[in-house]
Amino acid sequence: MEEQYQDQSLKIFSLNGNEPLAEKIAAVFGTTLGQCAIKQFSDGEISISIEESVRGAHVYLIQATNQPVNDYYMELLIMIDAMKRASAKTINVVLPYYGYARQDRTARPHEPITAKLVANMLQEAGATRILTLDLHTVQVQGFFDIPVDNLFTMPLFAKYYREKKMFGDDFVVVSPKNSGVNRTRSLAEYLNTTLAIVDQEESDENGGYVIGDVQGKTCIMVDDILNTGNTFKVAARLLKEAGAKEVYACASHALLSPPAKENLESADITDICVTDSCLTDESRHPNNLTYITCGELMGEAVKRIHENTPMSPLFRLEEKDFA
Amino acid sequence: MEEQYQDQSLKIFSLNGNEPLAEKIAAVFGTTLGQCAIKQFSDGEISISIEESVRGAHVYLIQATNQPVNDYYMELLIMIDAMKRASAKTINVVLPYYGYARQDRTARPHEPITAKLVANMLQEAGATRILTLDLHTVQVQGFFDIPVDNLFTMPLFAKYYREKKMFGDDFVVVSPKNSGVNRTRSLAEYLNTTLAIVDQEESDENGGYVIGDVQGKTCIMVDDILNTGNTFKVAARLLKEAGAKEVYACASHALLSPPAKENLESADITDICVTDSCLTDESRHPNNLTYITCGELMGEAVKRIHENTPMSPLFRLEEKDFA
Amino acid sequence: MEEQYQDQSLKIFSLNGNEPLAEKIAAVFGTTLGQCAIKQFSDGEISISIEESVRGAHVYLIQATNQPVNDYYMELLIMIDAMKRASAKTINVVLPYYGYARQDRTARPHEPITAKLVANMLQEAGATRILTLDLHTVQVQGFFDIPVDNLFTMPLFAKYYREKKMFGDDFVVVSPKNSGVNRTRSLAEYLNTTLAIVDQEESDENGGYVIGDVQGKTCIMVDDILNTGNTFKVAARLLKEAGAKEVYACASHALLSPPAKENLESADITDICVTDSCLTDESRHPNNLTYITCGELMGEAVKRIHENTPMSPLFRLEEKDFA
Amino acid sequence: MEEQYQDQSLKIFSLNGNEPLAEKIAAVFGTTLGQCAIKQFSDGEISISIEESVRGAHVYLIQATNQPVNDYYMELLIMIDAMKRASAKTINVVLPYYGYARQDRTARPHEPITAKLVANMLQEAGATRILTLDLHTVQVQGFFDIPVDNLFTMPLFAKYYREKKMFGDDFVVVSPKNSGVNRTRSLAEYLNTTLAIVDQEESDENGGYVIGDVQGKTCIMVDDILNTGNTFKVAARLLKEAGAKEVYACASHALLSPPAKENLESADITDICVTDSCLTDESRHPNNLTYITCGELMGEAVKRIHENTPMSPLFRLEEKDFA
Amino acid sequence: MEEQYQDQSLKIFSLNGNEPLAEKIAAVFGTTLGQCAIKQFSDGEISISIEESVRGAHVYLIQATNQPVNDYYMELLIMIDAMKRASAKTINVVLPYYGYARQDRTARPHEPITAKLVANMLQEAGATRILTLDLHTVQVQGFFDIPVDNLFTMPLFAKYYREKKMFGDDFVVVSPKNSGVNRTRSLAEYLNTTLAIVDQEESDENGGYVIGDVQGKTCIMVDDILNTGNTFKVAARLLKEAGAKEVYACASHALLSPPAKENLESADITDICVTDSCLTDESRHPNNLTYITCGELMGEAVKRIHENTPMSPLFRLEEKDFA
Amino acid sequence: MEEQYQDQSLKIFSLNGNEPLAEKIAAVFGTTLGQCAIKQFSDGEISISIEESVRGAHVYLIQATNQPVNDYYMELLIMIDAMKRASAKTINVVLPYYGYARQDRTARPHEPITAKLVANMLQEAGATRILTLDLHTVQVQGFFDIPVDNLFTMPLFAKYYREKKMFGDDFVVVSPKNSGVNRTRSLAEYLNTTLAIVDQEESDENGGYVIGDVQGKTCIMVDDILNTGNTFKVAARLLKEAGAKEVYACASHALLSPPAKENLESADITDICVTDSCLTDESRHPNNLTYITCGELMGEAVKRIHENTPMSPLFRLEEKDFA
Repeated sequence: MEEQYQDQSLKIFSLNGNEPLAEKIAAVFGTTLGQCAIKQFSDGEISISIEESVRGAHVYLIQATNQPVNDYYMELLIMIDAMKRASAKTINVVLPYYGYARQDRTARPHEPITAKLVANMLQEAGATRILTLDLHTVQVQGFFDIPVDNLFTMPLFAKYYREKKMFGDDFVVVSPKNSGVNRTRSLAEYLNTTLAIVDQEESDENGGYVIGDVQGKTCIMVDDILNTGNTFKVAARLLKEAGAKEVYACASHALLSPPAKENLESADITDICVTDSCLTDESRHPNNLTYITCGELMGEAVKRIHENTPMSPLFRLEEKDFA
Repeated sequence: MEEQYQDQSLKIFSLNGNEPLAEKIAAVFGTTLGQCAIKQFSDGEISISIEESVRGAHVYLIQATNQPVNDYYMELLIMIDAMKRASAKTINVVLPYYGYARQDRTARPHEPITAKLVANMLQEAGATRILTLDLHTVQVQGFFDIPVDNLFTMPLFAKYYREKKMFGDDFVVVSPKNSGVNRTRSLAEYLNTTLAIVDQEESDENGGYVIGDVQGKTCIMVDDILNTGNTFKVAARLLKEAGAKEVYACASHALLSPPAKENLESADITDICVTDSCLTDESRHPNNLTYITCGELMGEAVKRIHENTPMSPLFRLEEKDFA
Repeated sequence: MEEQYQDQSLKIFSLNGNEPLAEKIAAVFGTTLGQCAIKQFSDGEISISIEESVRGAHVYLIQATNQPVNDYYMELLIMIDAMKRASAKTINVVLPYYGYARQDRTARPHEPITAKLVANMLQEAGATRILTLDLHTVQVQGFFDIPVDNLFTMPLFAKYYREKKMFGDDFVVVSPKNSGVNRTRSLAEYLNTTLAIVDQEESDENGGYVIGDVQGKTCIMVDDILNTGNTFKVAARLLKEAGAKEVYACASHALLSPPAKENLESADITDICVTDSCLTDESRHPNNLTYITCGELMGEAVKRIHENTPMSPLFRLEEKDFA
Repeated sequence: MEEQYQDQSLKIFSLNGNEPLAEKIAAVFGTTLGQCAIKQFSDGEISISIEESVRGAHVYLIQATNQPVNDYYMELLIMIDAMKRASAKTINVVLPYYGYARQDRTARPHEPITAKLVANMLQEAGATRILTLDLHTVQVQGFFDIPVDNLFTMPLFAKYYREKKMFGDDFVVVSPKNSGVNRTRSLAEYLNTTLAIVDQEESDENGGYVIGDVQGKTCIMVDDILNTGNTFKVAARLLKEAGAKEVYACASHALLSPPAKENLESADITDICVTDSCLTDESRHPNNLTYITCGELMGEAVKRIHENTPMSPLFRLEEKDFA
Repeated sequence: MEEQYQDQSLKIFSLNGNEPLAEKIAAVFGTTLGQCAIKQFSDGEISISIEESVRGAHVYLIQATNQPVNDYYMELLIMIDAMKRASAKTINVVLPYYGYARQDRTARPHEPITAKLVANMLQEAGATRILTLDLHTVQVQGFFDIPVDNLFTMPLFAKYYREKKMFGDDFVVVSPKNSGVNRTRSLAEYLNTTLAIVDQEESDENGGYVIGDVQGKTCIMVDDILNTGNTFKVAARLLKEAGAKEVYACASHALLSPPAKENLESADITDICVTDSCLTDESRHPNNLTYITCGELMGEAVKRIHENTPMSPLFRLEEKDFA
Repeated sequence: MEEQYQDQSLKIFSLNGNEPLAEKIAAVFGTTLGQCAIKQFSDGEISISIEESVRGAHVYLIQATNQPVNDYYMELLIMIDAMKRASAKTINVVLPYYGYARQDRTARPHEPITAKLVANMLQEAGATRILTLDLHTVQVQGFFDIPVDNLFTMPLFAKYYREKKMFGDDFVVVSPKNSGVNRTRSLAEYLNTTLAIVDQEESDENGGYVIGDVQGKTCIMVDDILNTGNTFKVAARLLKEAGAKEVYACASHALLSPPAKENLESADITDICVTDSCLTDESRHPNNLTYITCGELMGEAVKRIHENTPMSPLFRLEEKDFA
């Protein structure tokens, strides 16, 4: 535990999305979370009351917006409104997981771009800065006209596999579907491997094939969002059919929506590494799941924002971090 | 059923809040509701796809935002975004019930004004006009900078009681709590009665007293939102203790949050008249509840908006309507 | 007189609305008002020149916007523009009286919501915060998206009557018309009394009746705005007819538009207590009028805003304040 | 009188600034002014009620904002707000005279730019287009981001003097002060004359001199705003001293603030031609004043706006107009 | 040539970016381009004058923003401003090529997101709708809050190769770099082929390798922007080294910045198919380049926008289009 | 060289417009310019990377926007965007020369107001304050809603001529065209001279005449922008023809667009004094040109902005400055 942080103008508040992570972030400062009461009335409306003065303070609101995503976003928007009216000096929104991030374009005519709608709502409510973790597409930064710092999880996973000695020619980093290739390539560079792609067909679970060479190699699949686990499950089967020796997987955001537990326990995947960006009930966790924390990374980022020191060192894993 | 409405530029869409009411509104035009698919993904995110072209159309989106209020607001905001991007010419939001309307001020320091937040969100998303029904406080109109037409329910209730011959000196219209007196006074004028007020104490269910004379009279309590029914229950008891002969009640918006059914069935209230602005499960309905519809009123209002004819005739009950 | 305030970044300016009150507010800081020249040209246009540097300063502009309300609002808007262009860091508008506050809804179709228009104008001109006193309706806070602190006058009046030993069972606090009941109830709680309401009819000065029991009691009428005094005059008569022993009155804002002096002097009201939020010519003051000052309360609020200390202690009267 | 204009979507309303001019504008369409009630309450607040439906209409609001300028601007802003909330389709503001137009820059540090403030207020309130007449500086058009059509008065004055055969070498067009030279030059071109300038000194009424040759010529002074008449009076004296044979004057906007009548009647000016853009009391009119109307020009401009036909023909006087 | 288009409210203007394409778009309507003069003053400033009335018109501004990109964007922004002030009813911006589209995220800390800046500038200037062709990343749609229709070029290329009988198992569609895989996959589906990816290393021109199987097959490389041709040149070499039989290429936007001609003529690529979205000097065109036009597609899209008919049919190639 | 400036929160960056001037401004602080890389890609797009942290800093961006004006404005806008996203606290734009300043009104119908467009773009991108030098028309200040400080060059020129003993009755200050008379008058006051105006005709180079008396006097012509030198050349000839003894000239901004060198060397002008607000190639400089620097004036202004001290002393030349 660090000693008490000196700057009293910083206040960190957690909403209901992921309080354990918020506590880890606050712990980086050796401080506790701000006092506020978040209730639901009998008719489902959210009631928020901030229970300490924030007049002139720099507030950081920690909220992960996985399920129930709509409640968590309304909580966040209402809290921003309350902070604005209570005269907070800056309102910094920390979103370890950005719900609706995948709705970032009109896939078909007549569709919304909900990720942009969310960005507009946060800004209109009064957010003055955003801190995110591994956005589904980095272009979402451009949905905002306030500063957005997007942290990467690949250095965390690189450290995880480096410590297990999983790097070099016997390994291949795999994208389990034909998007998100940049993320895959980033991890491959950290681990000195080639890469491969699984081309799945949405309409036919038995279709799909592996692009690239995985024969006799240990595969590490990379994805940003682990929802039902079906993408990993299908990709693992195709990789094994293509000659893979063993299959691992990692994902930044573990939503684990049912039937993720069943899908992942039945898939031939040795270990699935995820961060604690999302909080879910333990009943959803498959037994081959490993959590690593993004709390220190995010806490350090909050500190750099608050102290106006550069964020860039957080964006890369250094050799010295491999020891 | 009226004949098919001729103006093809008008399109009415219902979200999930109150589809039966939306159908009644559409029926005023002799038309059917627009096609759209509203789903929830396995992770709880809402997916909306408009399944017909709205390019250049005047669209009316019907959504009641009672429980689950946050889901219903997000549905509505996403739909507005989709309509805007699909090039609808105007986006008219019809809110038979405006969730969060009671959070219209900072009751205590450090509180949000969520009703204003909602107004800002709707405008920012792209709404070009709002149609509401009996707003909790009429000042909420001023939360918007786009036109807002707020319809009144008192003429509907006046008609209901007039038809039952419940007017004149033997009756008294009562506000069950010391706010919303304007609404009470409006009904009293329609029914040619005096008025009374029940001054309840929030902190003490056994406290409270009746201001005004109800001795030997039939009381008609008026409120805008019927949530758990506790306010009506306590007021009915106090009125009876003060000598009231019989107690009736009416409310614009029937949320009926548990334990409303128990509260209202156990209260000494002969009949509780509500509109169908909110849709709730039948298991919530007490046996002394009567529904009247606001569908024709709202449909007529949509028609006047669309045809640029004056709204003012809808704001009053005429003598001829009493027959 | 307090000693000179140390923080040179605070500057208080008075416009023409109520300079005596502005001086009382400045006196709380032991400081003098900022230098500025406000003139009218021969064609009626207002000319403003700030005569000291405000670059980087936190400025507080004190303006009461009673008659001539339009001139006073234009003065204020022009001053805000000048402050913005002269690079003030924050522009805090102090409105002891908020003109047009009663036009807060469309009472009839085709009407403006002028209180919202004013809110929009102030924000568009560059105001960054508002401090008001007893707004006609608290919902007007929600007309703004910048912080609004609304001070209450009821603790001031409670102190006034407590000091006169006017509390308890022999008294009744009365709303002279059927709105503003919350204000009445607040004073009733401070004075441990019941409450009553006078239901006046706008169209018939001889109509109206008292709701609640005033027989043999001393009545204290409460209102926010005292304009021509007609409401108080009619209510006093009805209260006396209903058996009241003696009638007092208090009001937050004393506009005293003619024929207020005649109305109030002829009414059977022992004492009318008002604050000095509005400045009017002495020729308008009836002889049964008593002024109490809101200057210390507002000065203390300005101090708490400037020093980022909580405002909440100002919102209540403590037992210790009764001594 | 033209016959009744066919397009019912056009509605012209006059505020209190210059109703006779508004009627002339309406007469171009053969129509009458829209119905509205503009009152002042006893406390000086303006009350506006539109007394016919404007839902979907294109409204034109005629308001000259000379003295009392602040009341007239508030009237206008409140009317715009009312029109917006009453669902007018477009709100076109017609300002024959733009009050505060001279405050178009910060002449000294710490001054407002009130002409820009006014532009922002009009847009924020909801104006969608502006029509002005001879703006003090044409750059004020750029203060708006909505379309602004600025009509010129020089063709009207050119016609006036052409009809009097006042053109050619015996005449000289004079700017009575060293700004607004463009306006002078425009009239000189219409009248085929040279031009001259009077360089007055603000601080010394007896200083100043004539730049250019006026010896033995008839001078026509040109200005945009005729306020107290002092500028014309001093310039006329200097011109006479420099050998001018006779002095005439014209000005677009006749404010005639006292002591204009005295100044102008005592000045050696044969005739002062002004337009009816401003309405003032007859007691202010000197006996050497001649009014010409801008009503047809402005009415024609409104027509071209409404019918989407080009405005450019109105910007020049054609040879054929001289006959 | 189609017959003259009837709706006179539609006006199409070309700026200097790609007038031949603008003429093809206008030809779809059987109309000619609007008259306007675009000049550069001696100091390099752009001067624009619209030489016909656009009052009330729906204008479409055609501008490709390839080199000189800054001049072309300023031209466009100035034209939008002119159209807004000249009272165009809607201002529809047609961008066959969206310059700065690749700067859609902060690739490293302290970088701008210029594609968002451009979006903000276009909206702020007054654009009411955008029509683009094959945006570099589809998320750029979300940078706007006005409707954006993004047309695809893959159906055009599919038709081109289908007509050459280039589809089926002997072919493979290749992404020449590890991004833009969606575009590759779309063409592969149209041509019934598998897909492959070339993983180039930016830092090492001799590095890189092919992911997927191309042995003995004819490769069709797909990219959106063809700038210097280096990506295609390197990828073609790697494909040949990996056993490809023959290499084709297609790209939506042909910038052909030097030394593209040298790069492409020296590369072992049989044919490079591009659209005419960008206009470049013929001296830049390599001899293995084939142009197909996007003019009909874009003209048809403009028509659907103007007539409010659905855009969706333009987004797919139908079987019937293969004949 | 002053000693190192202590306040590390101030950072000055130069773009490509006028780096020598930026260095003079930085020298006032004894500091060096911030590190940033500004490149053009092969396709002409600008790439900017800030190479030091600006998190929380007050940044000053120096950019003169003479030719190539469009590139320089895009550079500036992109830099502002980068600074905003990199979390600079304030973004202060310093424009020694404001390109497009002359397009400040719609001279003819259907024209843009590009100077306003530029103002809107700068504000929308994120500029929080502007510092300019001798704006073409001072009304352009009103195009902004952020603080604008406009410095004057006349004191610099007054000092220049005072030091040459060029003042008093033997001199006359001349406006070479009939606008900008205020600038002329300001210099005339500093030099105790009368003034004259040259009325040129745009359409006829041989037309034009001198208004006022220059016989036997030394003329000092004053203009803000020296573009091709034609205005000075024609005016000098007309002044000589009217009897002037000798002709000097000064101008704030030396664009010197060809054929300025030829025009000015062939004109009968003894000396042309300009500031270094614009950087141009030496090949453009005529041999009768003298540069004086505005660097200290602008540096001093930046200092006053940063330190919140009054700007007003910079606006006037004091007697003591004449020594």
